Amino acid sequence: MKAVQVVGYHQNLEMTDVPTPEVTGPYDVIVKIGGAGVCRTDLHILEGQWAEKSGVTLPYTIGHENAGWVHAVGSAVTNVAEGDKVIVHPLITCGLCRACRSGDDVHCEQSRFPGIDTAGGYAEYLKTSARSVVRLDDSLEPADVAALADAGLTAYHAAAKAARRLRPGDRCVVIGAGGLGHIGVQVLKALTAAELIVVDRNPEAVKLAAAIGADHGVVADGQHVEEVLELTGGQGAETVIDFVGEGGATRDGVRMLRRAGDYHVVGYGENIDVPTIDIISTEINFIGNLVGSYTDLCELMVLAAQGRVRLHTTTYRLDRYQDALDDLAAGRVRGRAILVP
Amino acid sequence: MKAVQVVGYHQNLEMTDVPTPEVTGPYDVIVKIGGAGVCRTDLHILEGQWAEKSGVTLPYTIGHENAGWVHAVGSAVTNVAEGDKVIVHPLITCGLCRACRSGDDVHCEQSRFPGIDTAGGYAEYLKTSARSVVRLDDSLEPADVAALADAGLTAYHAAAKAARRLRPGDRCVVIGAGGLGHIGVQVLKALTAAELIVVDRNPEAVKLAAAIGADHGVVADGQHVEEVLELTGGQGAETVIDFVGEGGATRDGVRMLRRAGDYHVVGYGENIDVPTIDIISTEINFIGNLVGSYTDLCELMVLAAQGRVRLHTTTYRLDRYQDALDDLAAGRVRGRAILVP
Amino acid sequence: MKAVQVVGYHQNLEMTDVPTPEVTGPYDVIVKIGGAGVCRTDLHILEGQWAEKSGVTLPYTIGHENAGWVHAVGSAVTNVAEGDKVIVHPLITCGLCRACRSGDDVHCEQSRFPGIDTAGGYAEYLKTSARSVVRLDDSLEPADVAALADAGLTAYHAAAKAARRLRPGDRCVVIGAGGLGHIGVQVLKALTAAELIVVDRNPEAVKLAAAIGADHGVVADGQHVEEVLELTGGQGAETVIDFVGEGGATRDGVRMLRRAGDYHVVGYGENIDVPTIDIISTEINFIGNLVGSYTDLCELMVLAAQGRVRLHTTTYRLDRYQDALDDLAAGRVRGRAILVP
Amino acid sequence: MKAVQVVGYHQNLEMTDVPTPEVTGPYDVIVKIGGAGVCRTDLHILEGQWAEKSGVTLPYTIGHENAGWVHAVGSAVTNVAEGDKVIVHPLITCGLCRACRSGDDVHCEQSRFPGIDTAGGYAEYLKTSARSVVRLDDSLEPADVAALADAGLTAYHAAAKAARRLRPGDRCVVIGAGGLGHIGVQVLKALTAAELIVVDRNPEAVKLAAAIGADHGVVADGQHVEEVLELTGGQGAETVIDFVGEGGATRDGVRMLRRAGDYHVVGYGENIDVPTIDIISTEINFIGNLVGSYTDLCELMVLAAQGRVRLHTTTYRLDRYQDALDDLAAGRVRGRAILVP
Repeated sequence: MKAVQVVGYHQNLEMTDVPTPEVTGPYDVIVKIGGAGVCRTDLHILEGQWAEKSGVTLPYTIGHENAGWVHAVGSAVTNVAEGDKVIVHPLITCGLCRACRSGDDVHCEQSRFPGIDTAGGYAEYLKTSARSVVRLDDSLEPADVAALADAGLTAYHAAAKAARRLRPGDRCVVIGAGGLGHIGVQVLKALTAAELIVVDRNPEAVKLAAAIGADHGVVADGQHVEEVLELTGGQGAETVIDFVGEGGATRDGVRMLRRAGDYHVVGYGENIDVPTIDIISTEINFIGNLVGSYTDLCELMVLAAQGRVRLHTTTYRLDRYQDALDDLAAGRVRGRAILVP
Repeated sequence: MKAVQVVGYHQNLEMTDVPTPEVTGPYDVIVKIGGAGVCRTDLHILEGQWAEKSGVTLPYTIGHENAGWVHAVGSAVTNVAEGDKVIVHPLITCGLCRACRSGDDVHCEQSRFPGIDTAGGYAEYLKTSARSVVRLDDSLEPADVAALADAGLTAYHAAAKAARRLRPGDRCVVIGAGGLGHIGVQVLKALTAAELIVVDRNPEAVKLAAAIGADHGVVADGQHVEEVLELTGGQGAETVIDFVGEGGATRDGVRMLRRAGDYHVVGYGENIDVPTIDIISTEINFIGNLVGSYTDLCELMVLAAQGRVRLHTTTYRLDRYQDALDDLAAGRVRGRAILVP
Repeated sequence: MKAVQVVGYHQNLEMTDVPTPEVTGPYDVIVKIGGAGVCRTDLHILEGQWAEKSGVTLPYTIGHENAGWVHAVGSAVTNVAEGDKVIVHPLITCGLCRACRSGDDVHCEQSRFPGIDTAGGYAEYLKTSARSVVRLDDSLEPADVAALADAGLTAYHAAAKAARRLRPGDRCVVIGAGGLGHIGVQVLKALTAAELIVVDRNPEAVKLAAAIGADHGVVADGQHVEEVLELTGGQGAETVIDFVGEGGATRDGVRMLRRAGDYHVVGYGENIDVPTIDIISTEINFIGNLVGSYTDLCELMVLAAQGRVRLHTTTYRLDRYQDALDDLAAGRVRGRAILVP
Repeated sequence: MKAVQVVGYHQNLEMTDVPTPEVTGPYDVIVKIGGAGVCRTDLHILEGQWAEKSGVTLPYTIGHENAGWVHAVGSAVTNVAEGDKVIVHPLITCGLCRACRSGDDVHCEQSRFPGIDTAGGYAEYLKTSARSVVRLDDSLEPADVAALADAGLTAYHAAAKAARRLRPGDRCVVIGAGGLGHIGVQVLKALTAAELIVVDRNPEAVKLAAAIGADHGVVADGQHVEEVLELTGGQGAETVIDFVGEGGATRDGVRMLRRAGDYHVVGYGENIDVPTIDIISTEINFIGNLVGSYTDLCELMVLAAQGRVRLHTTTYRLDRYQDALDDLAAGRVRGRAILVP
C-alpha cells in the first residue's frame, strides 16, 4: 500500500510502497483510512523534536489522528466488525495494567502511539487494536471527525473534567480559542450552564468563539486580566482552562482565578511558577490534562453525532500530503487539514 | 480581665487589664480560655510580618488557637450553652455568603480572625461566635486540644482531602514530620489504608513518625528522592502532602509523585515552579490547602476523642507567656506550648 | 395588612386583617409579596391532610411559594437590602446544626416552613430570614418565579443531582411531564447532554415536553416500558427520574432502568416494592429527593435568568384567591396559578 | 486431572477424571488450584436453584472461589507468569464493552462465571483469563485467601463504597456479622474512622464482631432498633449495610437509618418495601451492591497482606469434598471450608 513516511529529520516526508498491515493477533484491527489529521505535532516530528522521546526507528509512517472503516479484525474482536465506520483512539493500550483496569487507560504502563512511535495513518491502512476503535454514528464521516481523535479528545477531556465541578452561576475562563479551545467551548456549552469567558489575542478567534456559544469574548491586549475580573465581580472565575500555556498565559490566567478555583493546564510551553503562599492562602488547584481516555472518545463522538461539536476541515488527497503540511506551516489552513484517500 | 497584648512590633508583649468581653449580638459566645496555643505565627506577628496584611490596630490581644468553657451566649445561640467545654474555630464567619452557604466557610467573604485582626485568646476570656465553637467530648480538656484549633486543623484538612482519593495499595508521601506533619500522619492512619512514607531532615522526627504509624521513614539527606522511588517501585507515590514548602521541598516532592498523582501544598515559602509540559505529560495536580472548615474541626475533635490524634503539650500559666515565647523561639518546647489560666 | 387564612379544615379560606410582620431578630427579613404560588398542597392543607404533621394552630396564613421585594431587614442582614427583588426559600433554617453547616440545610434539625407550620405568603407581607432569601436578577419578576420556590426547586434538586452522573451517550427517563417534570426537563437540558426520554399518560404533556427539549416522548399507554426499552437498545436507561410515584409508576420505572442505574424518587404515593435479589443482581440504586437547598435555589435562579428555565403562569389578584383555588381544583389553570398584589 | 462435578440436581457431586484445561487463547491463564472455597451457593446449585439462571449443561465442575499458582499462560499475558501465586476474580470479562472500559467490569455484557456457568475450581486446575488473576503478596497463601474471591469481595465492595461517604463522627450499622459481615467490619475498620454498630441475632457473632473492631454490638432480640436509635442520639445512623436482607432485616434496618442516609443492600431474600413518601421526606437512598470489580479484589488483597482482613478457615483435601459440604450444610464449619490439593 501507499504510505507517507519520515525518512530523516529536517527532510521532507516521502510517499512509498510498504506492505499492507495484516491481522496477526486476536485483538488486532486493520482500519482503511478515511481521514488522517495533519497536526502541528507532525511538523515538530520532522524537526526532530520527538526523535529522542519516541525512540522510533526511521523510516516510519506518521499520522496520529485517524478515522476510517474496519477492514479486518482478529479472532477475539467483538466490539467492531468489518465495514464499521470508526475513529481511532491515539493510543494502543494493554488492558491489563492497573491504569487500564481502572478505566484510566491513558496512563497505561505499556502503551504504544501509532504515528509517533509506530506506524501511523498517513497511509491506506492502519493497524490498531480492538481497544482503540470507537464505532461512529451513521451521520458522521471519518474525514469529518479524524481531527477529533487527538486534539479534540484532549480538549474534551479537560472541558469535561472541568464541567464536573461547574454549577450554574459559576464562570469558566477559556484561554485560547484556537483548535483546542474551539472544541473546548463547544463541549462546555454542551455539558454545563456556567458562563463562558473566552480570551484570545486574535480578535477573529474571539468573534468565532462568541458565535459558537461563548458568553463573553475578551481580546488579550494587555487589559484582559482586568476585563475578566470586571466580568466576574472582581473575584475571578471558578475555573480557568488554559489551552495556551506559553507567552505569559499562565501568569495572567492565575490572576483571573477565584479563591478555591481550578486552573486546568492543557497548553504547554512555559512554567507554572507561583508562590506556595498564594496557592495556600487562596486554596487554588492546578489540574494537569493529558489526552482523553477511550470512554472520553466515546462521549465526544456522541456530542459530534448530536451536532454539538463541529469542526471545520480542509481535505487533501493523500498524495498531496506535502501541500497540506506546507499550508499548515504557512498558516493557510482554515480549521484542520485532513488527508483523505 | 488580664490580657496579653501586642503593644508595638519588635517589642515584647505586655500583660494588661482590659474590659472583659460581653455579649452584644445574638450569636455572640464568650469563652473562658482553658488553653491558648503559642504558635510560631505569634513570633512572626511580633516581628511585624502580619502588620500590613491584617491591618490590625495596636494594642490588641493575640492568640489564635483557643479552647475553653462557654461563659455566656447571645439570645439566638442554640448549639452550645454556658459551661460547655469547647474548641474555637480560628475564623468568625458570616454564614450568609455563598461560601458559607456551601459549607466552605473558610472562604467566607467577610471573615474575621481573632488573634490576628481582632482580640484573641492570650487572655481570660475571648469573644467569638456560635458559628465558631465546637463542643468537646467529656474525655477532652481544653488545654490538651487548643493547639489543634489552627495548626492541627490545617493538617486535618489536607490529610482528609487527600484520603478521599487514596485506596488500599496507594502510597502517600508526607514531607515534614514536624507539628503539622505529625498530626497529618495520625489523620491519614485513621482515614486510609494507604502506605505512609514520611520524609524529614531530622532523624528524630522520622523515628517519631514511625512510632505513630508511618510505614516507612526516610531521612532527607540527599538520597531521599531515590529512596522514595525505590519504595514505590520506581513510579512514585499517588499522593504527596508537602507540609514544608521551602528549602527545595517542592522540587524534590514533585519527583516523588506518580503519574496522575496529587501534590498537596500545605507548607509555604518557595514557589511551585514546574514546566507545564511535565504537568500535562504526567497529568499531575497541585492542590492548595488552607485551614479546615468548621465541619473539619468537628471531625478532628472526633478523632481526638477516639484517641486517634494526640498532641504532646507543655503548659505555662498565662502570666508566664514570655517564657513560653522564649522557649518556642529557642527551640526548647517539646510538642506545643499552651497557655493555661 | 390583608392575609388569607385557614380558619378551619374542610372550610373555605378567609381574607382578614392581621398585624403586618415586623423585624424582631437580627436576621429577620420582611418581604412584600410580589407573587405567591397556589399549589396543590394548599388544597391538601384545607382537606386537613397536613393538620397533624404540621401541628399548626388555626387560624394561620398559608402560601409556601413566595417571591417579592425586601421591605425591611434585621441589624445583622448583609446579603439583601431594602428594595431588593427576592425569591424565598421555603424553609427557615437555623444555620448552626450539622446539616446547615455542611450546606445541606434542607435537613436542618430546627427548620420552620412558612405557609405550612407558620405564617405564609397569601398576604401582603411575609416574615422570613436572611438565610432564606435569594436576590433576583433584574430580568426576573417575583410573580414569574414564585412557583419555582418549592415545586421548581424540588425538580431542580433531583435533576441536578441526577445530572452529576450523566455522561454523553447516557439516557435519562423522566416519568411525568407535569409541573415538576416540565422544570426537570429544562434543567436536564441545561446541565447535561444525556438523551432525554419523557413518559406521561397525557399525550399533550408529552408533546409539550418535546417542545422544550425532550429527545423522545412516550405516551404511557401500556406499551411504554417496551417502548423505552426499545429506545435504549433493550438495556434500559442509566437514570430514571420519577416525578409521579403512584399508580404503578415505580413498578414500570424500575423495568426501564439499566444495570447499575439510578432511580430517583421524587413523586410519591405508592411503595417502592422491589426484591432485594433484583437490587443486588443488577446493582441499582434508589435515590430519595426532597426540596432543594438554598444553593440549589441560587442555581435555579441563574437558569431562570438565563432563560433556560421558564414557567407558564396565570395571575390572580390576592383577593381573588378563591377563584385561583377553584380553578386549580377543577383543572382549569394552565401552568401555575400565582396570587399577585 | 481430578475434578468434582455436578452430575445431576438433588444428587451428590462426583469426583471424576477430566482433561486438564489447556491454553488455547492469548489471554488464557491456567491456575493450579491451591484453595477452593466451599460456599453455601454450592449447596444451592445442587438443589437446582441456579439451573435455569445459569443455563449450564451437566456435568460440569463447580467451585467459584479460587486461588492457586499460575501453571500456564497465553501468548499475550503480561500481568502474571508461571509460578505466580494468584487469587482468581469470579468473573471472566470481555475487556471491550462499555462497562469493562470504565473499570466497572462486574457489569460486563459478556461475562462468564466459572463454577456457575462453566468449569470451576473443585479440581486440580482451572482455566481463567489474564483479566481475572491478581498476584498475591509473598505473605499470603492461596488456601488462606480463596474464600475472599467471592464472598469477601462482595463485602469489600459494599464496605469500601460506603466508606467513601463516611466521615469521623458518622455511624455505620452493619446488619449481620456472619461470613460477609465479618469481612465488612474489618474493611470498614481499615478504611474509615466511623463508629461501627454491629447487629446480629447470634450473641456469639456479636461478641466476635466486637473482638475485630466493632465499637458497639447489638443482639437482634426485638429491642435492637431502639438500641441502635439510642446509640445514635435518637436519629439513626448515616449508613446501614445490610448483609442479611431477609427475615425482616430491611424493615428494621430502614428504621435505624438517619435522614439523608445510605442503606446498602447486600444480603437478599425479602423485598425492599418502603413508602415513597418516607423515601422523599427523609431523603434516604437504597444502594445495590453486587460482587466487587477486579480493582476491588486488588485492594482487598492489599488489606489481606497488611493483616487488616483475616479469615478463619478449615481445610479439607479435595477428595474429602463431601465432608466439607456435609459439614457446611450441618453448620459444623468454623469460618470457611476450603478444599486444598
